[in-house]
Amino acid sequence: MKNKAITSRDENFAKWYTDIVRASKLADYSTVKGCIVFEPNGYAIWEKMQSVLDKKFKELGHQNVYMPLLIPQTLLEKEGELIEGFAPEGAWVTEGGKNKLEEKLMVRPTSETLFSDYYSNKVKSYKDLPLLYNQWCNVMRWEKETRPFLRTREFLWQEGHTVHASAEEAQEETIRMLNVYKDFFENYLAIPVIAGKKTEKEKFAGAEYTYTIEALMYNGVALQSATSHYFGQKFSKAYNIAFLNKENKLENAYQTSWGSSSRMIGALIMVHSDDNGLVLPPKIAPRQVVIVPIGKEGEILSLANDINKKLSENGITSFVDNSEKSPGFKFAEHEVNGIPVRVELGMRDLQNGKICLARRDTRERIFIENDENVVKNIITLLDDIQKNLFNLALERNKQKTYTAKNLEDVKQIMSTQPGFIYASWCGDKECELKMKEIRGTKSRCIVENQNVDNDVCVVCGKKAKHMVVWGIQY
Amino acid sequence: MKNKAITSRDENFAKWYTDIVRASKLADYSTVKGCIVFEPNGYAIWEKMQSVLDKKFKELGHQNVYMPLLIPQTLLEKEGELIEGFAPEGAWVTEGGKNKLEEKLMVRPTSETLFSDYYSNKVKSYKDLPLLYNQWCNVMRWEKETRPFLRTREFLWQEGHTVHASAEEAQEETIRMLNVYKDFFENYLAIPVIAGKKTEKEKFAGAEYTYTIEALMYNGVALQSATSHYFGQKFSKAYNIAFLNKENKLENAYQTSWGSSSRMIGALIMVHSDDNGLVLPPKIAPRQVVIVPIGKEGEILSLANDINKKLSENGITSFVDNSEKSPGFKFAEHEVNGIPVRVELGMRDLQNGKICLARRDTRERIFIENDENVVKNIITLLDDIQKNLFNLALERNKQKTYTAKNLEDVKQIMSTQPGFIYASWCGDKECELKMKEIRGTKSRCIVENQNVDNDVCVVCGKKAKHMVVWGIQY
Repeated sequence: MKNKAITSRDENFAKWYTDIVRASKLADYSTVKGCIVFEPNGYAIWEKMQSVLDKKFKELGHQNVYMPLLIPQTLLEKEGELIEGFAPEGAWVTEGGKNKLEEKLMVRPTSETLFSDYYSNKVKSYKDLPLLYNQWCNVMRWEKETRPFLRTREFLWQEGHTVHASAEEAQEETIRMLNVYKDFFENYLAIPVIAGKKTEKEKFAGAEYTYTIEALMYNGVALQSATSHYFGQKFSKAYNIAFLNKENKLENAYQTSWGSSSRMIGALIMVHSDDNGLVLPPKIAPRQVVIVPIGKEGEILSLANDINKKLSENGITSFVDNSEKSPGFKFAEHEVNGIPVRVELGMRDLQNGKICLARRDTRERIFIENDENVVKNIITLLDDIQKNLFNLALERNKQKTYTAKNLEDVKQIMSTQPGFIYASWCGDKECELKMKEIRGTKSRCIVENQNVDNDVCVVCGKKAKHMVVWGIQY
Repeated sequence: MKNKAITSRDENFAKWYTDIVRASKLADYSTVKGCIVFEPNGYAIWEKMQSVLDKKFKELGHQNVYMPLLIPQTLLEKEGELIEGFAPEGAWVTEGGKNKLEEKLMVRPTSETLFSDYYSNKVKSYKDLPLLYNQWCNVMRWEKETRPFLRTREFLWQEGHTVHASAEEAQEETIRMLNVYKDFFENYLAIPVIAGKKTEKEKFAGAEYTYTIEALMYNGVALQSATSHYFGQKFSKAYNIAFLNKENKLENAYQTSWGSSSRMIGALIMVHSDDNGLVLPPKIAPRQVVIVPIGKEGEILSLANDINKKLSENGITSFVDNSEKSPGFKFAEHEVNGIPVRVELGMRDLQNGKICLARRDTRERIFIENDENVVKNIITLLDDIQKNLFNLALERNKQKTYTAKNLEDVKQIMSTQPGFIYASWCGDKECELKMKEIRGTKSRCIVENQNVDNDVCVVCGKKAKHMVVWGIQY
């Protein structure tokens, strides 16, 4: 029953990952170095992610806009930290319409500069605030090593950029959007995450502070999964976004940005999938149920269509696979593609009043009565799968979550069975760099509101300032 | 009552157009030359267009994918006509990650080359065909003169790319998608269009032939509104897309492409809008109805919320404007933004059992009974507005559609009251170029199945080959 196109996950995780991407037809490599082609199965997941997040953003009062792709160098350079952070990864347009350009333009790696430039013209009074904008777009970062979805030169994402009349309001927005991402990961992607603040070293270039959600992959490697930044007045001072406040005084505005990307498809693969292909949580699966009639009898076909119609009426995305392929071929194909539930309608089962449901997560086949409860039972099963995938990931995370008291502990954990390590830290960058020497271990985030008065730094042994979650990252 | 921020349409159409774009907050100019910022009102129209077209594409079996932004020069050059057509408008990335690139990359002006390259790896057998893919993305053409939505260096669009096992099937697809666009323009955008084939001179670089839909703007200038191309085997030969056919012989595949863009927002403005701002057909308006309670009485507010809820239950996008602004300010704002119907709830009217509906297209205010038919009456009014806008445009087009027998006719028409000119043509490029000397008049499309046996060319007087629609274009 093992899918031969897919390397075993426990033997070679990296190879398994790319095998899944290819076998499940999520993406293909392209002639364009470091870039991928999003194939229909992969793009459909992205569309589903977009639809859920976009609805949530809009419910919270955000509006979508679209900023230009290219950023003039001088505009980029107005804020020093951002350009410093992104210059090494810039892709530059230097020729346009057969002429060398007077000023080169960077393909946007992120759009703080363009939003800030725009806001500087729009914001005059506290009455204009807040402006809560978001855009869905492509961005480009000239990465050296790439891996489909996880790290590519071009990727798809959304970037929210908001501007507020007070620091408090902007900080609330930062936390609000962090929680949107956390909810999305846990309740849609079925991926448990840790939320916390980045250290100074790991924060976004140009941010006052950065919040992150961090997920743990099957192999114990961490993935920074979405981020939410508070900019304070850094950009508003650099780009002159000033408004007349209620006291009729000119004040620089307060900004945030927050983003999530097509990298989330990579997380889905590395958390839930198995040696038989993709496994998708029902709430993010573009197609939730496939109905396979076994045999050509009119009775079977009409039952298939009937179930399909009723599922659709209940908001479930289902389809009947009535193609010429053999049932075995269909089963394998839908399995590798990660359709959460397969309904098998065979004459023999039906004669016994039974219908077979195959769940993708556990690969169990369950026989249920062919009665008025069929649709209800399928919906219940989808709920079960959603919960089961979250619980499996949570359970695995627990097993791969450690505490460390010293560097020896860290070395021992990271060299055998990596995962999240809780270890207190003095706040010194030097100690972060020491940790990095151990298989690239980095601080994932600071755990907030944790008392470390009696703890010492895992590296230097001096008095601890923060409890930090550490991990090896993608 | 005249909106002072907007120049009169009949005085200065070009100025009126940009005034509408700014006053209705559709787009803003950007620091990036030739590019615009899609503001929330403009982007919401684009999202609505996307949702309608995307649904239709998917119903017809198309799937969305995403190809890379950048195209290597050598890949572009495999097909000679395309690169020749687009090279003068190319934006080139020549530096990446601080290094000069070995090969420069063009920001995609269109993606035939990338799709063809991808298909060449995927298509092996007739069983793999057809592949019906589409992508929504940004593209870039280094235009010299730009105008918001109509012509900008970067714009948003969709490009469908399909590959088939037979010429017939691909040609059917070309016509099918042309008709999707025609239906969308006439039944959603309320813009009547002429559909036909482009001349050799005007067809897409690399196509066997191009179909187009052409719309006429308020000022009599034509707009190429969407195109559908049949490529035959041009790209499949250049990029080696070959499949084993049913006779087990290797055959080059047959391709199409079809596209529509954010330019459609420009068409909406120039066909329907007036001196008071944007006018939107209800079926494409992101917000169809605004309900304005006049006064703070609980009775009025609860009626507003009740109507809003019922409209929403009937699939109408409505909202209650309960802000602090004065009713007059609200009326003007919703008018300039083109909300098709405004419901005014005033205490005095309500005491007389009346509700006032203001329609944006004619600016009439209609009093209806405040009874159980309110919602039904609003929905009927939205239908009326949709039909009225189409009929107005159709009527205007009739008035601006002419026939010409010779160049003098063409000169006279184009210099006084331009529009569509029907005139027969011999098929010679020389004669097309002569027409162009008259205020840039170009062939819009060839009218198919029209007998011109007894006609002569409007330019040279020789025997005619085709009936052609001519116009001055954006």
